[in-house]
Amino acid sequence: MTDFTRTRAAFHLPEGVTYLDGNSLGPMPVAATARVADMMRDEWAEQLIRGWNSAGWYAQPRRVGDRIARLIGAGEGQVVMGDTLSIKVFQAVSAARALRPDRRVILSDSGNFPSDLYVAEGLAGAVDAELRVVRPEEVADAITDDLAVLMLTEVDYRTGRRHDMAALTARAHQAGALAVWDLAHSAGAVDVDLLGVDADFAVGCTYKYINGGPGAPAFIWTHPRHSDAAAPILQGWMGHAAPFAFDLDYRPAAGIERMRVGTPPVIAMTALDAALDVWDGVELADLRARSIELSEAFITGVQENCPDLVLNSPRHPAQRGSQVSFLHPQGYAVMQALIAEGVIGDFRAPDVLRFGFAPLYNDVSDIERAVDTLARILRDGSWDDPRFHQRAKVT
Amino acid sequence: MTDFTRTRAAFHLPEGVTYLDGNSLGPMPVAATARVADMMRDEWAEQLIRGWNSAGWYAQPRRVGDRIARLIGAGEGQVVMGDTLSIKVFQAVSAARALRPDRRVILSDSGNFPSDLYVAEGLAGAVDAELRVVRPEEVADAITDDLAVLMLTEVDYRTGRRHDMAALTARAHQAGALAVWDLAHSAGAVDVDLLGVDADFAVGCTYKYINGGPGAPAFIWTHPRHSDAAAPILQGWMGHAAPFAFDLDYRPAAGIERMRVGTPPVIAMTALDAALDVWDGVELADLRARSIELSEAFITGVQENCPDLVLNSPRHPAQRGSQVSFLHPQGYAVMQALIAEGVIGDFRAPDVLRFGFAPLYNDVSDIERAVDTLARILRDGSWDDPRFHQRAKVT
Repeated sequence: MTDFTRTRAAFHLPEGVTYLDGNSLGPMPVAATARVADMMRDEWAEQLIRGWNSAGWYAQPRRVGDRIARLIGAGEGQVVMGDTLSIKVFQAVSAARALRPDRRVILSDSGNFPSDLYVAEGLAGAVDAELRVVRPEEVADAITDDLAVLMLTEVDYRTGRRHDMAALTARAHQAGALAVWDLAHSAGAVDVDLLGVDADFAVGCTYKYINGGPGAPAFIWTHPRHSDAAAPILQGWMGHAAPFAFDLDYRPAAGIERMRVGTPPVIAMTALDAALDVWDGVELADLRARSIELSEAFITGVQENCPDLVLNSPRHPAQRGSQVSFLHPQGYAVMQALIAEGVIGDFRAPDVLRFGFAPLYNDVSDIERAVDTLARILRDGSWDDPRFHQRAKVT
Repeated sequence: MTDFTRTRAAFHLPEGVTYLDGNSLGPMPVAATARVADMMRDEWAEQLIRGWNSAGWYAQPRRVGDRIARLIGAGEGQVVMGDTLSIKVFQAVSAARALRPDRRVILSDSGNFPSDLYVAEGLAGAVDAELRVVRPEEVADAITDDLAVLMLTEVDYRTGRRHDMAALTARAHQAGALAVWDLAHSAGAVDVDLLGVDADFAVGCTYKYINGGPGAPAFIWTHPRHSDAAAPILQGWMGHAAPFAFDLDYRPAAGIERMRVGTPPVIAMTALDAALDVWDGVELADLRARSIELSEAFITGVQENCPDLVLNSPRHPAQRGSQVSFLHPQGYAVMQALIAEGVIGDFRAPDVLRFGFAPLYNDVSDIERAVDTLARILRDGSWDDPRFHQRAKVT
């Protein structure tokens, strides 16, 4: 059994705050500051350039990738860290498309995170492909024989709706296409099983449920059947078979290493590495069970106590990730009022109140406080105050 | 006058080490650990997701970019930070090429850093362009009327040879092409003047002479005449005109902001910001004068005392950046022996001993010690020891 009392204690949670926005940015692991300071003092300052070998910086993206692998049902040596999620989406989709050179359609849905769509749009314009976007519920039927790549985010960033990765991947394969999955709202939140569902490529970020810090490095996974054939457009020296031979021509490294691009962000990756320590001993089945428990308690509580809110997530837990959203026409002001009371959720335009449940540090006391505060604010109308209508938020 | 005693004191230089490899990785500014720890504790841990506004994280890539701008002769609001140099090369070259859609040739030289060539090769293969690579001394004559983009690194990573940015940019413009400059070995090392030479795009890293830490974020600059027209292939949400409107279609932000891609690396950028404090009050003319003084002293000293070494850099300082290299058939072992004596330079295959001079913290005592140690090792043959021939170095 996973000890969630231990994991909760591993985070710094500010006094008086109930944090239900770990799906935007996870809180800081208590150990992270010392770990980063030690790395800076003992490695950067003392070892200088030698740190690439002596402190293991060069191997870090792969070593940390192995720690992520366990959380997404991937094998050792199959995941590598670096860049941002948008860059990794570009790599995965461009590599997948190149494996289906006679096809030009990239299919996605309108529930995908917009940056994924922007990246695919930019790629499609450059390589004469076509980005086709349908509604999430139309995806299965839109998988046709002209498809090169199916590019989806498993869990919808607004509704929390969870795609059926196994079924959609199988359908894509039947149509001769490859499946690229974005795990931004899945990794560290639900029981992802990449090898089990037989996906082709996957990418994700680590600053949400994995708690790596603002702008923490992204990850990319390639199924072993593709990893020596994948040819992403972005060819950087760290993905070269012999980066320090300084050949003039590019020769991709074997396996997932070719998905590296430039010099890896060592300081940021060290904070992430500290965050991954908290995951030691956490079982994905326990994580999922606790996520469902918290989400269900929240939905039930809100539906019983907040008649003005409309559920914007699937009601059945099997169809959800680890977040829930509700609609309110004045959602922005309601969320600002809630935050002013110490309960931090998120707002997504135009009317979405979004709440993430991170099993590692959220517990039932958070759910109770959130429901009680939300109910009170809506009941007494205190959200309808000029200061809560002022828009300054950028995230 | 720049106070180089102050700047030298601002760095942690390990006891007993003379560091002449700041052109690979700059040393740690003393203030950086506390700055990063404060950011983690006061911003990430306490402000959580609100930090994007309240701690200024969202604006950080542009604010830090403005600090870089002064070091490269760019104007305010023209530089933005993020990603790695390889990614920024891809953005700049793809955007430059798109501004010359009727031409397909990207010209570079064999003195360019290999990753730039790999990136251009990957781009060229994807967008039906052609990468043409000539020797550095052939570049001027190879600028022909079929050129879309001239892509060069100003200072050669092995020889220190400095291209004439003004002349080559002018020649590219005469031929109807655009000039993309990589400032990896220039920014913080020489007196770059992007607006003065009328360049089109420039990119660079910040972990060398700018001392931002291992894998610190890269920068990109676009000349204002292009910044609202540039359309890089990599389109991420942070480069969108309204990232938080979550539109399904990409609409580029005005100006340099469109060169942002994904979520910026806040922890890493905070270390860089601390490193930039050291640059306050440093005049580029003083920097260049001191760089030449140190380089000249080193060349003179080595030529007088190390007859086995052959100069591999231009002899005239106007044709060099802030580094010097010498050749020795057993360069690897010689460099390992030198490092074992506490003088850290760098080795580049097959036979290059490379020494960087960072005016911010190197002084004549470093030069004297390096020359003396090198001369002694070569004279007494102590470099020819089995332990110095073992290759483990990856950087």
